[in-house]
Amino acid sequence: MLGNFTYCNPTRLHFGEQALEQLAGELKHYGGRVLLAYGGGSIKKNGLYDKVTAILKACGKEVFEVPGVMPNPTVEKLYEGCRVARENNVDLILAVGGGSVCDYAKAVSVSAWCQEDPWDKYFLRMEDVSNPIIPVGCVLTMVGTGSEMNGGAVITHPAQKRKIGHVFGSNVMPRFSILDPTLTYTVPMEQMVAGIYDAFNHICEQYFSGEDDNTTDYIAEGLMRSLVASSRIALRQPENYEARSNIMWAATWALNTLLAMGKSTDWEVHMIGQSIGAYTNATHGMTLSAVSLAYYRYIMADGLAKFGRFAVNVWGIDPAGKSAEALAEAGLAAMERWMEELGVARNIRQLGVTEDMLEGIADGAFLMTGGYRTLTRNDVLNILKASM
Amino acid sequence: MLGNFTYCNPTRLHFGEQALEQLAGELKHYGGRVLLAYGGGSIKKNGLYDKVTAILKACGKEVFEVPGVMPNPTVEKLYEGCRVARENNVDLILAVGGGSVCDYAKAVSVSAWCQEDPWDKYFLRMEDVSNPIIPVGCVLTMVGTGSEMNGGAVITHPAQKRKIGHVFGSNVMPRFSILDPTLTYTVPMEQMVAGIYDAFNHICEQYFSGEDDNTTDYIAEGLMRSLVASSRIALRQPENYEARSNIMWAATWALNTLLAMGKSTDWEVHMIGQSIGAYTNATHGMTLSAVSLAYYRYIMADGLAKFGRFAVNVWGIDPAGKSAEALAEAGLAAMERWMEELGVARNIRQLGVTEDMLEGIADGAFLMTGGYRTLTRNDVLNILKASM
Repeated sequence: MLGNFTYCNPTRLHFGEQALEQLAGELKHYGGRVLLAYGGGSIKKNGLYDKVTAILKACGKEVFEVPGVMPNPTVEKLYEGCRVARENNVDLILAVGGGSVCDYAKAVSVSAWCQEDPWDKYFLRMEDVSNPIIPVGCVLTMVGTGSEMNGGAVITHPAQKRKIGHVFGSNVMPRFSILDPTLTYTVPMEQMVAGIYDAFNHICEQYFSGEDDNTTDYIAEGLMRSLVASSRIALRQPENYEARSNIMWAATWALNTLLAMGKSTDWEVHMIGQSIGAYTNATHGMTLSAVSLAYYRYIMADGLAKFGRFAVNVWGIDPAGKSAEALAEAGLAAMERWMEELGVARNIRQLGVTEDMLEGIADGAFLMTGGYRTLTRNDVLNILKASM
Repeated sequence: MLGNFTYCNPTRLHFGEQALEQLAGELKHYGGRVLLAYGGGSIKKNGLYDKVTAILKACGKEVFEVPGVMPNPTVEKLYEGCRVARENNVDLILAVGGGSVCDYAKAVSVSAWCQEDPWDKYFLRMEDVSNPIIPVGCVLTMVGTGSEMNGGAVITHPAQKRKIGHVFGSNVMPRFSILDPTLTYTVPMEQMVAGIYDAFNHICEQYFSGEDDNTTDYIAEGLMRSLVASSRIALRQPENYEARSNIMWAATWALNTLLAMGKSTDWEVHMIGQSIGAYTNATHGMTLSAVSLAYYRYIMADGLAKFGRFAVNVWGIDPAGKSAEALAEAGLAAMERWMEELGVARNIRQLGVTEDMLEGIADGAFLMTGGYRTLTRNDVLNILKASM
């Protein structure tokens, strides 16, 4: 049954090959002081930095920069961005990069004017925002996290070995996002497939909850089928516009809150994956793929009907003559074959996890209650061992 | 290929059995003068009018009313609402009813402060809005049109025999909508099934365009499958909350602009159906169902691959051993059987269309260019004759 909910997602998305042309129109709505956040410098090599700064200049903006936002943005980097935003009293934060940069921009947007330590308030204590929020816009260069159309931000505290995400409300969602699939062509193959699996797992985390026949789950199945079909084309032809644009669009809808409406949602794979990320700094999507199969096989019996539905509706498996268990396992086996095709990580050892980390990773993994089974810390340890 | 587009849908939806409790919170954002628009009085019989006016009163609002909004709102009724809105300088229009009342509220919202005749400017000439817009909120009591989360409004000019819809931008979309599935329980069965078919056809109108493998089409297939599954439950158990809530949610997403993103879209069934509506005042969903089969069979050869995909992905038909034509026809035959189950109109004679109206109906049907075939007026006449 669809539970009660409120849905609101006001982000304005400009999608397509000429989407960057819409940036100037968006910038008109904000004051003259813009904080430009970006990553390791790939946008300087591929010319995007020059294009964006030319548009900012033509719009008469004064630009302040936070370069070097890392793949798993740290709390120290968050403090730096807050300082720059505050000292320059910026009117807009423009993220140019992948999900980490977008996440980072949103974290700065809620933290810059926070009177307390934002790590404590927003990530450890998960409080609501009670201070002014700086608007955020995104120019997306990498696909997967869905950060371009949601209120989420994940920040890592290396000293505390914690990587924590907070999903803020619609007032923290980007005011606008520029989605040009051709900007994702230069992403290395490993990042592309990690992003595809990240998006796929976002859908799984929401789909594998509840017992009934929600409209939301039918949408989820459509998105998964589209992702699988397009990923197979993109593996062979990374510059196939149709495939890359479908992947980009599916990834946005995979995590813009729609698929969670009326559902309890799981998110345990993300909790375990994030804890692995805190210990290894591994690519987010790979931390998810490395534990997914062990996790889903661990809980399969608790959500057998849904795993069977997954087999039939997502992977096209004929249920005739199969037991419920065999059907459910056939769906996961089909997912496993697809993950092999993608070449995503399927064990945590290859991400740099060693035996001595397992206890700590288990400690860092929140135990979620919305999926088919609420794990214990010992269950998490079992899953980690099965993922080694 | 997904074409370039901008997506923005800021409507805040409150969904579920207690959704009306959210009305007071929404009302806080607007001034004290509210125009309440509603239909023929069923909300007075079932107690909803009392509940809504009690909330308005508790929030200190001064309420002005436009009762009697008819199923196909007329231009004269539009002028009346504009007068009331203007004379009382209202801050918000609150629609309580089905899609017609929501459409009407949006039409008044753009027309009240229009310096010209709004029928000429917004419906005959389809111009953009250049005057102040009065915000709209909706409490939905009937499912189908999707009006609760889009910028569309359809108005009928009986003297001119024209029923015309204008899809306005995101600034005309309702600011908020209250969606409580239990409020739809009292709708007569005939209205329920007409609404279900209306929603289904909205998906078809967007799905049956383009040649490729868009993410959008996968979402469309999921929504169609959900609608079919839930409708079969609702036919037997009209007060099955799960079924009615899924139908309500699917209908919202069927026409809130998502399924049109990156697609050319068709809408010819709506154009013919609306012209029938101008001549007969028949229920909107029934005008669509009455011409759909004739239309899709008329154009099937022009979009054969998509009709085949429809057969497989929506109706679960096994393509093995079937020619492309046989597969496509099998999909339409499955749709026809479902329409029989629903009991929706499958010919236009039962809607009151007579032979002498056909030329006029054909004159009133716009010829759209986004589908698999651009019809001529003669094609429309053929389809009308095949629908008799």
